[in-house]
This record gives sequence, structure tokens and C-alpha cells, in this order.
Amino acid sequence: MRSTLGWSADSDAATLRRTPLERRDLRPDDIAVRIDYCGVCHTDAHSLRGHQGATPLVPGHEFTGVVTEIGPEVAGFTVGDAVAVGNIVDSCGTCDMCEVGQENFCREFPTLTYGGTDREDGTTTLGGYSREYVVRESFVYHLPAGLNPAAAAPLLCAGVTVWEPLRALDVGPSTRVAVAGLGGLGHLAVKFAVALGAETSVISRSADKAEDARALGATGFVLSTDPEQRAAARDRFDVVIDTIAVSHDVGPYLRMVAMDGTLSHLGYLGEITVQTMELLGGRKKLSSAGSGGRPATAAMLEFCATHGITADVEVLPSAQVNAALERLERNDVRYRFVLDMSDLD
Amino acid sequence: MRSTLGWSADSDAATLRRTPLERRDLRPDDIAVRIDYCGVCHTDAHSLRGHQGATPLVPGHEFTGVVTEIGPEVAGFTVGDAVAVGNIVDSCGTCDMCEVGQENFCREFPTLTYGGTDREDGTTTLGGYSREYVVRESFVYHLPAGLNPAAAAPLLCAGVTVWEPLRALDVGPSTRVAVAGLGGLGHLAVKFAVALGAETSVISRSADKAEDARALGATGFVLSTDPEQRAAARDRFDVVIDTIAVSHDVGPYLRMVAMDGTLSHLGYLGEITVQTMELLGGRKKLSSAGSGGRPATAAMLEFCATHGITADVEVLPSAQVNAALERLERNDVRYRFVLDMSDLD
Repeated sequence: MRSTLGWSADSDAATLRRTPLERRDLRPDDIAVRIDYCGVCHTDAHSLRGHQGATPLVPGHEFTGVVTEIGPEVAGFTVGDAVAVGNIVDSCGTCDMCEVGQENFCREFPTLTYGGTDREDGTTTLGGYSREYVVRESFVYHLPAGLNPAAAAPLLCAGVTVWEPLRALDVGPSTRVAVAGLGGLGHLAVKFAVALGAETSVISRSADKAEDARALGATGFVLSTDPEQRAAARDRFDVVIDTIAVSHDVGPYLRMVAMDGTLSHLGYLGEITVQTMELLGGRKKLSSAGSGGRPATAAMLEFCATHGITADVEVLPSAQVNAALERLERNDVRYRFVLDMSDLD
Repeated sequence: MRSTLGWSADSDAATLRRTPLERRDLRPDDIAVRIDYCGVCHTDAHSLRGHQGATPLVPGHEFTGVVTEIGPEVAGFTVGDAVAVGNIVDSCGTCDMCEVGQENFCREFPTLTYGGTDREDGTTTLGGYSREYVVRESFVYHLPAGLNPAAAAPLLCAGVTVWEPLRALDVGPSTRVAVAGLGGLGHLAVKFAVALGAETSVISRSADKAEDARALGATGFVLSTDPEQRAAARDRFDVVIDTIAVSHDVGPYLRMVAMDGTLSHLGYLGEITVQTMELLGGRKKLSSAGSGGRPATAAMLEFCATHGITADVEVLPSAQVNAALERLERNDVRYRFVLDMSDLD
């Protein structure tokens, strides 16, 4: 086994402690990555709150770093390559979903970067709040030159999560897009939609986000607490990307969808209730999305390189991880925390 | 005023009685229609159950007949023309929805064929369970030659209600369509999907519908009470048209939708609850539809004439309307009752 250090929570503890971790010895198609930067995702906070298992929890599923060692069968990477890893590190590879490059929908469920079960040895995966990760080549992406590695880390989860629905819904120059919620996911959705040529607006409860929205390239802003602005936005957008990370009524956002348009719901995984009349008045569609497959992830990174897109980040030494998580819960970040792992050396 | 006869329920009575009715004198753009056949829709039964208003209720919103008189400005019809009328008899005509031919989504709400409010005199509209109807020319359709007038009547509500989502979802030769619920709407959805060239299946709780499904042209059948058949149908269809007329869990039907596919929900208007995870695993979409605009209605009738499609009906003298409604509630009809109004003479 290989030894490294990381930030780990024991069972029933929600605070992360600096802990020695083991990584597996390299399999023939494995790559060892020195993690330089790892984004802090809402999922990490959710997982810590819900953590009860016997195994320690090491969060982190959007990271960038450098290849330090490769297995004998690795063909696409060499030591020293700048790389990125997202929230999936394996899948069955043979089901219909894997065959069309939607490993995120793998019939045997993809192996998640942390809290997943390794398909070979059955161990629980430990995430990227760590100095090293060992991962199959297939789930490692080249980090395009020119992208800042710290600011690029959130692309691997937040980025691909908003990229997939924008592409699946054919967002382009003729599309009127609104992004509800301007956080980690939302601000990347705005950057992508703008770069795709869409007429892009932001829907937010905070009037003070209007200026940020404009700075990100949005040309419209709907203050969702203002009934007049809500009414004026009725049936206004072909696509509404709802990135709000807590349980909420989707009705007000559905009403802003234009005929034959779609509300794509990303931020909250749970049960939602819909008045069918809201969908009916204009043949509106409700959709959900989350994560992405390997081809979409690679295409998204390519697109980011072409358009110079990375996340707006606040980089902190990894030792400040607990403070970062606490501030994230208060939405006190514009727009993504990224941990610098070099303090683990 | 003009005098006719119809089947009417007094306030808080759910039984229809033969009653003299008045129709307005013709306005310049009005047409008087002698109603020959009127279909019996689930909505009629719902309306009767919920009927509490001070005005009498005359149901009926899918009928065929013959023009008996025209106003001086009527240009497209002459006395003796075979015609059809659906569930909308007026709309504002100027809003964005009316302008694109989606009068069913009129911003001022379309005037329904019964229980609606006339836009000129404010009276409550009385429906097609009657021997005569007076209606604006714009909402009258030529009944194509070759379509049996009794069997064509249900096209005007049941037909267009399933036609709109099939067309909006681009159903054609490469589409795998499943129709959930084989009733008045469902059996027309199957006929349309088959005629559009789709690979068409039926999802039903009744094994004895399998033979009917095949007779209608469906090549697949999923018995929804059989867990094995449900499992085998997982992610199987690009479009699922859900015509089930009572409150139900849409989860089992969503699971049968393929990646990027759509569940279109028609039968039940109310609140539905969705697990976002059901939508998420495959970027599935949930949609609702109901009724159609004027261009879609005309196109649907044209399509029916080309393909020889009408509803499978059981024609009863209008005097048996209460028995028909009672049998409809027990689903004892294959697949639509149509009232023959000639017994009102």
C-alpha cells in the first residue's frame, strides 16, 4: 500500500482531522496523482452531516494535480502530466449507458470518488481531500494548458453538472437561458451559457447578486422575491437551470419557462411536487440532471480551454477545510472554495 | 334566442335530464350547428361530480354535425357542411399564444365549450349534449369526407389531446413510444403513434388489453402489475404517453423512459410528486399536455382523413347518457361512448 495524508472524519464525527491514509498499489491501468487542489462541493457538506458508517469519510471529488506514477498498461498519460479527476472513478464499462459514454448512469452504478465501493477489492473509496489519489486511467482527464489548476478543479463536478443539461437541451445562440441560484454551480452555468452564445439571465433572491450576474456576462436579472419581476419573467426562458441546493417549490421557476421549454433541476436531490397545470400551460418540461459521462467531461474541459473559463474560487490551505465547510453552509463564498493540498507535505 | 333541447344537470344534481335550452342568435361570424354526435369524455363525468354552480350544466365538448345557418360574415362554411367542434369555442385572439395558434394556452384563458364564460355577453356556455350549438366560425372545423361522423367526434377532444404531445415530441419512425392506459385517449394515441411510424407499445394493468393493443397496431405490451415485465421495460421508451385518468404514482412510468426521453402526462390534472432521482438517472423529462390549438386540431383531422383514423366507439341514443356516464366511471367502454343526438328531435 501507499501512504499519504488527508482530511478524514471518523464515524459520527462531522469534523475533519488530518489523518494518515493508505492508497492501493498501482494496478496495471492505474495512475497515481499528486493532488494539488480540491474543490469543496455541497455534496461534501451533505455527506459529512449524514456520515454514520464504520469507515472514515474523506470527502472531495473535484481535483487537479500531477501524475507521479503510472501502471504498465497506462497509455495516455506520463509522469508530470497535469490532470483532473471528477466524482466518478470507475464504472462497469459494458452496459448500454457506459457504451454511450454516460458512465454517470452506469447500470451497476458508477464508483464514486469517495464513499464508493471499489469494483475490484470492495474497499470504500476515500476522496480528494488528500495529497494523493490512485485512479484508473479511464477516469483521469488531461488538464488543458492555460487553465489555472486551482480554478479548474471545480469544473470536474460543478462544471460538468451544469454542462450536461446545457448541452442536452441544445443551448446555443437562439436560446433564452435563466440560471436560478448564483452559487458554485450557478456561476459556472452562467459562464457556459454566455460562452455558448445564449441570452443569459440570473434568477436570485439576493438583489446584491445582480452586479455579479452582469460581471459574469448575464444580460438579465430577475429578483425572485419581487412579485412584479416574477410576473414580468413569466414564460420568458427556453431553459431554466435550477441550481438551488435546498428543498424548494419549483412552481415559480416553472412559470418562467416558455412554451415547449424545460426546467432542469440540479441542486437538490429529493422529492419534488409539481402542479401538472404548471407544466400543462405551455407543454413545459421538467428535468433533472447530475454529473456527466467521460466524453462530456472531456468536451467540457476542451470548451473551457477554448473560452478561458474556470470557476471563481477562494483558495485556502487545506488545514482550513472545516472553516471552509462551515462558511459554505452559510453561502459565504463567491463562488467555490478550493483547498490547496500542499500544506499536507 | 334560439330554442333547442339538451341534457342538463341542475345545481347539485349529478343526473342529466332532458331540458329545453336556449342558444344565442347568430352573431355576424357565428355558425349554427345541428349536433349529430357528441362524445362522452372523462371531463364530463368529473364536471358533473363537481357541479355546484347556480347555472345548469350541459356537458359535451367533442361533437360533429352539420351547419344549419351562418352569420353574414362567415366565409369558410356554408349550410350543409359537415363540421366538428372541440373543447374550445373562443379565445382572445391577440395574445402571443393565440398568435402562434396555441389558443388552448390563451393568456386570457380560452372559452371552454361548456362551463366557460362567453367573451361578449358573459353567459355560461352550455355544451354539446344538445341538438344545436352556436359557435364562432374560427372554432369550427371541416369534418373531412370519409370519416364516420360518430366515430370522428372523439377526435376533437381525446384525439387532439394525444396528438399535440406526439407532435411536440417529434414522434416518428425512429421513436419508441409507449402508451400507458388503453382508454379513450390511449387507444387514439396508439393509432396515431402507429400511423406516425413509431414502434408502439401499450402499458396496462389489464392483461386482457394485450389483444386489443395488438389489434390497434401496437407491437409491444407491458403488463404493469408484473414486476418482471416492468423491469424488462426499464429505460425502454423515448416517449411514454401517460393517459391514466386518476391520481397515480408516475415513478413506474418514468422508469420506463429512455435516456433523454419524456414522460408526457395527460390523464390527470392535479398535483404529482416526483423523485428527482427518477428524472436524474438518464436526463429524463416530465411534461404535461392537454387539448390543442386550432392549427393542431386541423392538422390532426387531416392526418386522420389520410390514415383513416377514427375512435373505436359505442354509439348510444342520447337518452342513455346517464347510463353511459355510469359505465364510463367503471371503465366499461371500448373505447369511447358517443351519443346520437337525433332522439332529441
